[in-house]
Amino acid sequence: MEQLRTDGSLRHLVTLEGLSRSLLEQLLERSQQFVRPLGEKPPQRRSLDGVTVATLFTEPSTRTRVSFELAAQRLGAKVASVEMQLSSRLKGESMLDTVRTLESLHVDVFVLRDPQAEVPDFVARNVLPHVSVLSGGAGSDAHPTQGLLDALTVLQHKQRIAGLSIAIVGDIRHSRVARSAWRVFSTLGAVDIRIVAPAALQPDADEFADCHRSLSIDTGIAGCDVVMMLRIQKERIAETAIPDSAQYFAEWGLTAERLRRAKPDAIVMHPQPMNREVEIASDVADGPQSAIRDQVSNGVAVRMAVLEAVIEGRALAASTT
Amino acid sequence: MEQLRTDGSLRHLVTLEGLSRSLLEQLLERSQQFVRPLGEKPPQRRSLDGVTVATLFTEPSTRTRVSFELAAQRLGAKVASVEMQLSSRLKGESMLDTVRTLESLHVDVFVLRDPQAEVPDFVARNVLPHVSVLSGGAGSDAHPTQGLLDALTVLQHKQRIAGLSIAIVGDIRHSRVARSAWRVFSTLGAVDIRIVAPAALQPDADEFADCHRSLSIDTGIAGCDVVMMLRIQKERIAETAIPDSAQYFAEWGLTAERLRRAKPDAIVMHPQPMNREVEIASDVADGPQSAIRDQVSNGVAVRMAVLEAVIEGRALAASTT
Amino acid sequence: MEQLRTDGSLRHLVTLEGLSRSLLEQLLERSQQFVRPLGEKPPQRRSLDGVTVATLFTEPSTRTRVSFELAAQRLGAKVASVEMQLSSRLKGESMLDTVRTLESLHVDVFVLRDPQAEVPDFVARNVLPHVSVLSGGAGSDAHPTQGLLDALTVLQHKQRIAGLSIAIVGDIRHSRVARSAWRVFSTLGAVDIRIVAPAALQPDADEFADCHRSLSIDTGIAGCDVVMMLRIQKERIAETAIPDSAQYFAEWGLTAERLRRAKPDAIVMHPQPMNREVEIASDVADGPQSAIRDQVSNGVAVRMAVLEAVIEGRALAASTT
Repeated sequence: MEQLRTDGSLRHLVTLEGLSRSLLEQLLERSQQFVRPLGEKPPQRRSLDGVTVATLFTEPSTRTRVSFELAAQRLGAKVASVEMQLSSRLKGESMLDTVRTLESLHVDVFVLRDPQAEVPDFVARNVLPHVSVLSGGAGSDAHPTQGLLDALTVLQHKQRIAGLSIAIVGDIRHSRVARSAWRVFSTLGAVDIRIVAPAALQPDADEFADCHRSLSIDTGIAGCDVVMMLRIQKERIAETAIPDSAQYFAEWGLTAERLRRAKPDAIVMHPQPMNREVEIASDVADGPQSAIRDQVSNGVAVRMAVLEAVIEGRALAASTT
Repeated sequence: MEQLRTDGSLRHLVTLEGLSRSLLEQLLERSQQFVRPLGEKPPQRRSLDGVTVATLFTEPSTRTRVSFELAAQRLGAKVASVEMQLSSRLKGESMLDTVRTLESLHVDVFVLRDPQAEVPDFVARNVLPHVSVLSGGAGSDAHPTQGLLDALTVLQHKQRIAGLSIAIVGDIRHSRVARSAWRVFSTLGAVDIRIVAPAALQPDADEFADCHRSLSIDTGIAGCDVVMMLRIQKERIAETAIPDSAQYFAEWGLTAERLRRAKPDAIVMHPQPMNREVEIASDVADGPQSAIRDQVSNGVAVRMAVLEAVIEGRALAASTT
Repeated sequence: MEQLRTDGSLRHLVTLEGLSRSLLEQLLERSQQFVRPLGEKPPQRRSLDGVTVATLFTEPSTRTRVSFELAAQRLGAKVASVEMQLSSRLKGESMLDTVRTLESLHVDVFVLRDPQAEVPDFVARNVLPHVSVLSGGAGSDAHPTQGLLDALTVLQHKQRIAGLSIAIVGDIRHSRVARSAWRVFSTLGAVDIRIVAPAALQPDADEFADCHRSLSIDTGIAGCDVVMMLRIQKERIAETAIPDSAQYFAEWGLTAERLRRAKPDAIVMHPQPMNREVEIASDVADGPQSAIRDQVSNGVAVRMAVLEAVIEGRALAASTT
């Protein structure tokens, strides 16, 4: 679906698919302006003054919800927080009726999270012209602000994405994080993206075009610049025919020893929440090569940038019509 | 109970019963000032600066809760949101003890919603003199801000209420929306209010004085200016001896065909959430005669007006004593 | 653990244990400045402008959570409210990983409440140097802001704590309120603190040093200045071999008749929520000697003082390094 206005400005962000390299680079530059070291005051602006943002989550995610809400508040927006399982979905009200209701309350930006991949797209097609829809993660398909924050994190550490070798490791089959990362990294010119997973967790053959596939973490991460670990669900481990978490860690966990197979200055990433000692060793998660905390911080910066971009674009569009 | 201060200003709003025509008209005029087209900035004022508003809901309602909370925030109030089933009611703390606790935290306005009709009234009788209590819907009896927003919606479309024919259709027996609508429309001079429902969902004989009763939607809505549909619960359909939702829709659903029995410029209203294809056809709900989205928008405007009225009245009362 | 910075300013508040008399007196003086009569505007400042406070509660407490959140908002902070059972703890994310995530979102102050006594202390040992941790009540051990608000309430009514007789009555064994009260009252010089409880609810012999113990409320409260009643859980009543709530009230409930055994100007306190007619008679709870509502109001004042103190101390520490 079309995420841009006719003037090329960003209106919705439900997927990174189809966004141009220059647009992604602009968003990342704008994001970088919102980054502050921890302990310093976060940036505060009034660029969303008079705007109301609603987070509408049908699956729980403290981190993503709070990240979006703080981003909106720090730009001066009012925020309405709606968890659907607690409220009118009890009464069978559909997501779209709820969105239309909130639109009528002068909510101008929706952040949606849902286990069904098509929900944000469907809603975005049906909102009023001045309204924007941002995905906070949907199905196993797309988590666009996660992809942007991953890209920003790599940029901060490597100063570029073009030419890098990036290994994505774990349950890629069911991961919206992996799909969003692949889209942003390939658009920004990473030359060597590796899909590293047990056979049962590999994506379908027609996905992740131009990526290298590997069935072993040991060979999969060899010589790479970035090791991006994914969260593994206990139920998924069972599907791989690996007997338990301990055995999964032995075969697939990122340990300090394994990490030495990557480049000496490789960074380690994880979208969180982590299963420590299942997919990643605690000393690696908290170690000197870990960029995991930067990812979280960059999340707020990216969300501020996206919120500001969609509202700024709307104001420009309105002034020229 | 007495909802007005001795100077005649509004202190509580727990029912529309007993409020004068001139007071209702003042509230509706004030509400109209807070209406803005969607896409424009909602009005923002500081008239509730230093005031804390608490929403205290023991039954879920995204729409009403968010509507009150945005209304309060846009007037500069601080908002505390309390859902009782999630918190100390677990410990058996009574509603009134919770209200007294929040009063002591300098909460000055309470918005209460409860399945028991008498709760807001009981609380209003027991709060401190400077505190106001607003009903966000209680039992099957009263939902006063819904009544006001319904009146405002009719006024916007018909420029008057006096003299209109208004049909209220569906589960009137259990509906606080119907009772509040009847009170405001009859006070404001509607000449012909029709109670249109299957026998099992008709209210008791001593209720809805001076209304016409009808056991058929086809005759009930004939020639009317306003068709106000109500939500029907599945459990209630069973009580009517109608076998299922599909049959209910066939006998009682508002379809485009049926709507042609009303006046050509009749408007369609619904308090939401809707059961599409049960009490109302989707094409009618979203069609040109529908005022349903206006109702939601008007809800914020009405709640801003009521909040401002009770606080303004308090300030005046304080300055003259 | 060390709650003070090297310059002596307060950084964390997870227990009152070890805090000096002069520090407690400073906090209480600062708290008193935030007290306003109900009906007047609560104080509003900008001293937490740019600061984000997160409440992170794993057990429900409307009063304490709202009290902290309003305190933070009235000082100009942004607030993120996280109830763990509703969010990522579902996924097995540990409290500390959640705290680290929120730290990375520029949350600077955490208010933690947990059934496990050691949680706030553990978190405080592991946060970044600029971050403060406040306990909102943990386990049966510590509820430091409750202790401070109890002390402030006594000071307002008695103008001193030194030399007073204070009876703490009820389930002391399991009460963090009792332990925090004992710490603050003994540090501030109360000469006669009485632990009044059935044998099964008495604390261990090595706790509550220098307190008098009593197995009867009638003798325990005789001649005292302050009667502090505690909440009793139904399960705990069973442990005392008292058959039911009615019998507990007969043997241990604070009635108007019993209260006459205390000094004529004795005040009655209760941390709430109350079990009326179980541990306290309703007419005593709402009677002229009751200071229960003052306790709640003082809670916001104390929390504003503590929040301002930790942030002010941080700014001073930063400016001198």
